[in-house]
Amino acid sequence: MRLSQNITKTLKNVPAEEQAINAKLLIRAGYIHKEMAGAYSYLPLGLRVIENIKTIIREEMNALGSLELLMTSLQSKDTWRPTGRWDDKVVDIWFKSQLKNGADVGFGWSHEEPIMMMARSRITSYRDLPASVYQFQTKFRNELRAKSGVMRGREFIMKDMYTFSRNQDELDEFYNRTKEAYLRVFERVGLGESTYVTFASGGSFTQFSHEFQTVTASGEDTIYVDESKRIAVNEEVYNDEILAQLGLNKSDLKQVKAAEVGNIFNFGAIKGEQMDVYFNDEFGKKQPVYLSSYGIGVSRLMGVIAEHFNDERGLIWHPNIAPASVYLLAIGKEKTISAADELYNILTGNGVAVIYDDRDVRPGEKFADADLMGIPWRVVVSEQFIENGHYEIKARTSDTLKHLNLTALLELVSDTKDKGTSQKKRKD
Amino acid sequence: MRLSQNITKTLKNVPAEEQAINAKLLIRAGYIHKEMAGAYSYLPLGLRVIENIKTIIREEMNALGSLELLMTSLQSKDTWRPTGRWDDKVVDIWFKSQLKNGADVGFGWSHEEPIMMMARSRITSYRDLPASVYQFQTKFRNELRAKSGVMRGREFIMKDMYTFSRNQDELDEFYNRTKEAYLRVFERVGLGESTYVTFASGGSFTQFSHEFQTVTASGEDTIYVDESKRIAVNEEVYNDEILAQLGLNKSDLKQVKAAEVGNIFNFGAIKGEQMDVYFNDEFGKKQPVYLSSYGIGVSRLMGVIAEHFNDERGLIWHPNIAPASVYLLAIGKEKTISAADELYNILTGNGVAVIYDDRDVRPGEKFADADLMGIPWRVVVSEQFIENGHYEIKARTSDTLKHLNLTALLELVSDTKDKGTSQKKRKD
Repeated sequence: MRLSQNITKTLKNVPAEEQAINAKLLIRAGYIHKEMAGAYSYLPLGLRVIENIKTIIREEMNALGSLELLMTSLQSKDTWRPTGRWDDKVVDIWFKSQLKNGADVGFGWSHEEPIMMMARSRITSYRDLPASVYQFQTKFRNELRAKSGVMRGREFIMKDMYTFSRNQDELDEFYNRTKEAYLRVFERVGLGESTYVTFASGGSFTQFSHEFQTVTASGEDTIYVDESKRIAVNEEVYNDEILAQLGLNKSDLKQVKAAEVGNIFNFGAIKGEQMDVYFNDEFGKKQPVYLSSYGIGVSRLMGVIAEHFNDERGLIWHPNIAPASVYLLAIGKEKTISAADELYNILTGNGVAVIYDDRDVRPGEKFADADLMGIPWRVVVSEQFIENGHYEIKARTSDTLKHLNLTALLELVSDTKDKGTSQKKRKD
Repeated sequence: MRLSQNITKTLKNVPAEEQAINAKLLIRAGYIHKEMAGAYSYLPLGLRVIENIKTIIREEMNALGSLELLMTSLQSKDTWRPTGRWDDKVVDIWFKSQLKNGADVGFGWSHEEPIMMMARSRITSYRDLPASVYQFQTKFRNELRAKSGVMRGREFIMKDMYTFSRNQDELDEFYNRTKEAYLRVFERVGLGESTYVTFASGGSFTQFSHEFQTVTASGEDTIYVDESKRIAVNEEVYNDEILAQLGLNKSDLKQVKAAEVGNIFNFGAIKGEQMDVYFNDEFGKKQPVYLSSYGIGVSRLMGVIAEHFNDERGLIWHPNIAPASVYLLAIGKEKTISAADELYNILTGNGVAVIYDDRDVRPGEKFADADLMGIPWRVVVSEQFIENGHYEIKARTSDTLKHLNLTALLELVSDTKDKGTSQKKRKD
């Protein structure tokens, strides 16, 4: 990307009412644009981060054997009636509207009910199971307050996965594999160390559900962390009985603020029974389909990462999700500019994503923007290059300048992304 | 994709009220699921077609120098007030709802106004221009009737691009380049021959706007086509004066039904003036930003293609957008199954997208599903393979069976997709 082509330059000021650190930084750095409280557009740099996060999640979900689909936002009353969740007294965050004929429609805040309705028309036999599908969906939730930037939106992007199983064992097997896949996702986006599998209330379905909580001062949840066991307990289930059951000691636990970045639900047979989704087993007997559901807040994750990795100069992206690996700029006139043009072509030709700051502004402004945008490597083409054939390279996380020739530079910036354990080139 | 893992098998019956050929075929073949009239979910196969169409469009838009972003669906009244288009009497297809505090919100049916509001906070100087952005967005339109399947949805996927220019010449230059890019898109999805640049009413902005109309019996528009000149005229501007102006003869024109798959608008300075989007030119003088906007109906395109390419056995996808290149199946027991497993791994390992019908059903059912799904190549592993090392391969569009060894097979199915003129491997 040539920065001169990017409409969305960095800003000195953010909307005065904006309180959340993530939104302030992301707006200033030109990643998002505020439409209203809780609704942010993803500008070209922000969309790249979102897409990079989605790619990591997609790889891990595909590796589980789940297939991607895309459900509608528009929801009909009939779909949500069997579980009682159409009622605004039961679910108080619906956005609703009407068709021209007066029929009520809602905008999807979750997709458990529609996915079960879809399954009902497709699953008839044990041969159809197990099956798993997932989607990246824009959810709408009519939050009373929306003051946490992209960490809690009225409109936000979520990955939700649903698995249909024949029985509890089959469900549990997938559930446990997904738990591991989720930990790999958080590891790959850079939050591995600060993200904990957290025991939370299972509601009316099971004793526990599992949340994935990332420790961060701006988090809305309070959890108790056992750092050595890599386990946490949500305050809602923090009591002596449960600690004993989980084999945790109060003295090993640290109370921290955290943001929920993922959750997984084991519904057992309940949703199948509620929504009349049954299959015929090997013996011709009617059995309820077992449902589990698995969510990751994609745009929330971007917000949590922005809160987590920044300094006084701006954002600091993990190389796996940065909108570009390299921030390239030239200092000087024609010669260095044409050398920078050439390097831009070489890097992009080698599959390295580059933000090329080709604007006619002072170097100091470019350096400041490179830091504010949080791009992992800053590469400068200066007179020195013309003399010695060396580029100046600096990591966003260090103040050390290195001088490298083209081969060494290419090697360094191409190795930036680590491949996930399950990442495959094959299409299937 | 192993078909045994796909929840969404083909169906014998479609919802009785479904009238549109595209929806009937796409539902039966397991590409879409009807949520309500005008709102369809994209099942795994359908989402792949959508994503393949998006990839082609994305490549062509990137080649124009446009940058991808993603605006919100949620819209505030303030954004739409300056043009008067918040008013339900002016725009009668809004879905609207309320925030908890009673404030009205709308769901985006277009994004001209919000994109101009965003630009207003970013564009100040002639140095910021020209700039272009585009998005793939889910639009909501409260259509009175929605009987055309995915060809006219209440919820649908659109690619909309917006270009900001300093003056009319700069706008026109981009406008003309985009017209060519659009023709390449329609060519690459297989609709090149039947899609015409069509002169239509320019409304209050210009004399003409340009539509891209695909000739199809189920189209909602009537156009007059000059086949040799590759130009058409929408009936709304079909009169002697305009034909003379365009140098067209009535006797060369054929009246046909067509579906609008794309349109491009030249707003000149009007939107900039309406919405107070100005920049300072080289001489420090305030000038309105010139806007042009460019739309392609992505999900509509899938519908038009389904209507256009099918036969009594089912869908027929162009290789560039098919959900897979190969439909693979084995006839026989262990030996042929393990040979098919091996071929599946080889093909996917070579980047060929495969639907592997590994279900325990009769070969006839598999053949029928291969045709119904419309996958370009059907590959059968049978006893003959074990004897001669030959796979049986058949094109969806032919009844001729070929017998090829692995090398010849790989060559045939890997060459299926033609690369677009502007397709590049580089990231930038």
